[in-house]
Amino acid sequence: MKAAIFKKAGVMAVEDREMPTIQKPTDAIVRIVRTCVCGSDLWWYRGIDQERMAADSQVGHEGIGVIEEVGSDVTDFKKGDFVIIPFGLSCGVCANCRAGRFTNCVQSQWLTSGQSEYAYVQNANGSFDKIPDGDYTEEQLASILTLSDVMGTGYHAAISAQVKPGDTVAVVGDGAVGLCGVIAAKMLGAKRIVAMSRHEDRQVLAKEFGATDIIAERGEEGVTKAKALTEEGVGFDAVLECVGSDLSMQTAIQLARPGAIVGTVGVPHGVNIPFPTIFFGSIGVQGGPAPSHAYADILLRAVLDGEINPGKVFNFTTDLDHIAEAYEKMDKREAIKSYVKVSER
Amino acid sequence: MKAAIFKKAGVMAVEDREMPTIQKPTDAIVRIVRTCVCGSDLWWYRGIDQERMAADSQVGHEGIGVIEEVGSDVTDFKKGDFVIIPFGLSCGVCANCRAGRFTNCVQSQWLTSGQSEYAYVQNANGSFDKIPDGDYTEEQLASILTLSDVMGTGYHAAISAQVKPGDTVAVVGDGAVGLCGVIAAKMLGAKRIVAMSRHEDRQVLAKEFGATDIIAERGEEGVTKAKALTEEGVGFDAVLECVGSDLSMQTAIQLARPGAIVGTVGVPHGVNIPFPTIFFGSIGVQGGPAPSHAYADILLRAVLDGEINPGKVFNFTTDLDHIAEAYEKMDKREAIKSYVKVSER
Repeated sequence: MKAAIFKKAGVMAVEDREMPTIQKPTDAIVRIVRTCVCGSDLWWYRGIDQERMAADSQVGHEGIGVIEEVGSDVTDFKKGDFVIIPFGLSCGVCANCRAGRFTNCVQSQWLTSGQSEYAYVQNANGSFDKIPDGDYTEEQLASILTLSDVMGTGYHAAISAQVKPGDTVAVVGDGAVGLCGVIAAKMLGAKRIVAMSRHEDRQVLAKEFGATDIIAERGEEGVTKAKALTEEGVGFDAVLECVGSDLSMQTAIQLARPGAIVGTVGVPHGVNIPFPTIFFGSIGVQGGPAPSHAYADILLRAVLDGEINPGKVFNFTTDLDHIAEAYEKMDKREAIKSYVKVSER
Repeated sequence: MKAAIFKKAGVMAVEDREMPTIQKPTDAIVRIVRTCVCGSDLWWYRGIDQERMAADSQVGHEGIGVIEEVGSDVTDFKKGDFVIIPFGLSCGVCANCRAGRFTNCVQSQWLTSGQSEYAYVQNANGSFDKIPDGDYTEEQLASILTLSDVMGTGYHAAISAQVKPGDTVAVVGDGAVGLCGVIAAKMLGAKRIVAMSRHEDRQVLAKEFGATDIIAERGEEGVTKAKALTEEGVGFDAVLECVGSDLSMQTAIQLARPGAIVGTVGVPHGVNIPFPTIFFGSIGVQGGPAPSHAYADILLRAVLDGEINPGKVFNFTTDLDHIAEAYEKMDKREAIKSYVKVSER
């Protein structure tokens, strides 16, 4: 089968690999229908996270597809089911899974072969979400695919920041996660959503997703301008940090009002928490890798009802053979997020 | 009038000072009835926070007393009222005060003359809590005094950690704040409260306040033993960090389960937040200087109903003339917290 392979920084290839096989009775093999490239893939693609990705690795942690085969212990799903594979795989039965903290499953497994014709999925029972039978448009498929990670991650940012109805919310980061964070803030009833965004195409999408205001300035200037939109300038009721860089975290902290929580979902790279600042400012920090499986039900319903259209974050489409281009477009910021058609359902 | 004066590290004196006077129409002068020494006072007393306390300063940020005089804009209180003075003084009308974040009042003032015969209090209208008329026992006075800071601070730790009914809660720090944190966790419905405490007198009090378990070991050993008490050993639903040292913060983070929040109220000294650890562990951190004024109503009712007796944290009593001893006892850990009688009500 064909699989996307990380060769070295900046170089992706498509190579032939052995078909995955069931290793344990809890495993499943999924024929991938749609996959995509994640902003977090760019860290190792750019050579920043060398330790996280060895050369010649299969990659990809997002996907929807049709189950090809299940192990004998997989009782809730069967061959032919159309499913969402979350990036974090979970046993479903440990204390952390039972608490909905699927990305902290004590078995801690991750999807690592999403950008392939067939993906190897551990703990299928506790991980998959079934997509109801039906005919779906490409737009719907794209939106469903986002529940594998990016929309779940944006939602986790808003849940972590404890967005409540009527809140003022600032979203730091205008990548696909930040844009999904805007959708999530709106779903949770925020009355004012300020997107910190410098890129015109993303500003347009942020507005379409529910942002009431756009702040294009960065750093101190952006913070000052954004806070001026809040009650007496004290800051936002909730802040979504959707990048993972130190700059974005510092910006997020500065935007937060006393009592606010910075919901942080960007994979951290050199983030320093200025503890006295958050302590004396009464600012909380909460987040982590999104348990997207926990949010799949509510988000899938919203997608199928047409309430949200997170698939619009994909503005470049290709196929598995051309996945190198999917990375290049995102690397050069020519695409917000790249959508990859692998097979027909 | 007599006032406690910080002379230099380890040396407190009682000296004669000018009576405070009304400087602004929002001020009040309070004749102090009872005051006390705070664990956070020990930082500068021990010479660790030299920059926070100049030699020859008046000190003390906790007190209850009788109003001696009010400025012309103080409409809610009058001469003769018996009041709690919170350590953080607040205007009561800014956006942060209206949100209950009184210690983040935009005017940001603190009580600095609590250990004196008469205290100078800014923003009296937004700061005081009136103590109902009535005769109080010494035990009740002691418990009411704790609402000025320490009980409010313990309560803030539990509120910040978002303790819910049925939760398992770990309390790091067996000083007066930690012990009040145990009371608060119980008030909020925690079903299991584990106090990390090495000192026998504090263990006894922790049990009396509602701790279900005591862990005397420190560091890794203590963490392992405490977590063994939780569901599948994954950690506590909520953790109260009541010290402010780096060691206590690291212990608190290790005790937290994924999704838990570390409620932190200890004035920070060299605390480092290991961001990747809390991010990948899905652990939140939230807290700050307690807006004790926000909790005074609920806590005062609980004290007057006899539901809680936080005044038991005082196990050394003296008068203003002997305040040096009040500090020495706490410095040597011979007292959990020192109670100082200044005048009769």
